[in-house]
Amino acid sequence: MRNVTKDNITDVFKGYLADDMAPRTREVMSALVQHLHDFARETNLTHDEWRHGIAFLQGCAAVETEDRHEFVLASDVLGLSSLVDMLHSQDDATSSSVLGPFHVSGAPPLAVGGDMKRDFGGPVLLAEGVVRDTDGNPIPNAEIDIWQTAPNGLYASQDENQDTYSFHGLMTVGVDGRYAFTTVKPVEYTVPSDGPVGEILRACGRHPWRPSHLHYIVKAPGFRTLVTEIFPDDDPYLDEDTVFGVREDLVMTYVEKPASEFPDGMELSGKIDAPFLNVEFDVILAAEEN
Amino acid sequence: MRNVTKDNITDVFKGYLADDMAPRTREVMSALVQHLHDFARETNLTHDEWRHGIAFLQGCAAVETEDRHEFVLASDVLGLSSLVDMLHSQDDATSSSVLGPFHVSGAPPLAVGGDMKRDFGGPVLLAEGVVRDTDGNPIPNAEIDIWQTAPNGLYASQDENQDTYSFHGLMTVGVDGRYAFTTVKPVEYTVPSDGPVGEILRACGRHPWRPSHLHYIVKAPGFRTLVTEIFPDDDPYLDEDTVFGVREDLVMTYVEKPASEFPDGMELSGKIDAPFLNVEFDVILAAEEN
Repeated sequence: MRNVTKDNITDVFKGYLADDMAPRTREVMSALVQHLHDFARETNLTHDEWRHGIAFLQGCAAVETEDRHEFVLASDVLGLSSLVDMLHSQDDATSSSVLGPFHVSGAPPLAVGGDMKRDFGGPVLLAEGVVRDTDGNPIPNAEIDIWQTAPNGLYASQDENQDTYSFHGLMTVGVDGRYAFTTVKPVEYTVPSDGPVGEILRACGRHPWRPSHLHYIVKAPGFRTLVTEIFPDDDPYLDEDTVFGVREDLVMTYVEKPASEFPDGMELSGKIDAPFLNVEFDVILAAEEN
Repeated sequence: MRNVTKDNITDVFKGYLADDMAPRTREVMSALVQHLHDFARETNLTHDEWRHGIAFLQGCAAVETEDRHEFVLASDVLGLSSLVDMLHSQDDATSSSVLGPFHVSGAPPLAVGGDMKRDFGGPVLLAEGVVRDTDGNPIPNAEIDIWQTAPNGLYASQDENQDTYSFHGLMTVGVDGRYAFTTVKPVEYTVPSDGPVGEILRACGRHPWRPSHLHYIVKAPGFRTLVTEIFPDDDPYLDEDTVFGVREDLVMTYVEKPASEFPDGMELSGKIDAPFLNVEFDVILAAEEN
């Protein structure tokens, strides 16, 4: 097209797409550019604003490392990550929620009944439940990758005073599908706000807080892998999670119980001398699509 | 909002925006996120596709340097850069066109009538014209920043065999508004396609070619700065510029003339012994907005 105009440029773009390109790529790229162009036309985007956008991407590039995922964080605070999660959640399974930038591979094994709290202070939390299919049957040998912040609000990868895998554990459930572990009650924390994403939050008058949560990735052969989080129902940021991760079925009551009710057969059994918190949370996995 | 869903998340995002944020930032961020979310919903964007998008941004980050602007290039090949140009072009002035990633500051002065060809081979092109206001009056002392590729299709910044400012010149016109210089006829060339943007072009079955052109940035006190390009009407890529830069009023005929018609008063006057090309291109600047 020799005479590209602001009104025909989107069609010119679509006209450049080859007849034999992958149909799904055509669908995604056409929709992406249609929305990108509509955004610019509707806002009458200026050169200065365009330069601001390029500078934002370059600023993310400047801080992006193996341990800091600023582009993922941008997607998180704009709600895109959560939206993609929700588009592919199954109604009869546990809701998925954001992976976030702090998962690390290679967590050490954590036995059923094991302890992640170690020497850290803070209220003991006993988290337990059963991994089930959508008919309610336990899923034997499911694997749960668990991670959370330390009591200072930092993940191990953010904190040079923690071991690499502190508050990370990989549990394989037994034939009854039951998991259980002790830890410190997670705390609410802020996403990193010293980079370009923090500038966006400030420009929007938004805070960087997330409500406290446990992260799980739950896997079992024949089932869809679930990435999810569990939130306590008394957290002050439940209604304003800066990364949009809260779903109603993921909000649980952490029940305070006397030490005498701490169950047998756990790593900490017989060592609890104060009230502890207990959350019972069953995880429902959807069958894998064929 | 405790129960974020795929249908309400865009409103939840807008609800997070502070009452006292800058109104224009609110408008731009709201439109950006509305379109981002609509894009994901309409395409039912998958986790794999989302990861592909994040990997694309990380790939751009990995090659981005002071001399390589992969994010600008992405904006160029998706048509966003040209669209922003067109949204702010003025109907009665010369059309603007993409700056591109190869402009460098600090070009050496080039006198009116000067030569940029130097010892390079290829057809001599005499480019000339008058810088005018929208009433047709010459604009004295306007400044034209000129740059183009060498005959090998590379800009100086891409080519270690060229001087830093080869095929770059900064001309200040006289009281008659007239500019003139000699050069080699520019050649068509490819945008860098060895990075993530090249992968997008290939996935879309698109080529990386741009039609040949001269770049001008034209400035004068009291007028809007114009970034533009001049294309010859015999270029094979005029109808499929991969960065959408062609506008009808920027396509000119390069007229072949005998050596005897080469004008006096130029640096190359008396040194031309073969036919040369001549393009006459007046530049119309819009008055600055108050």
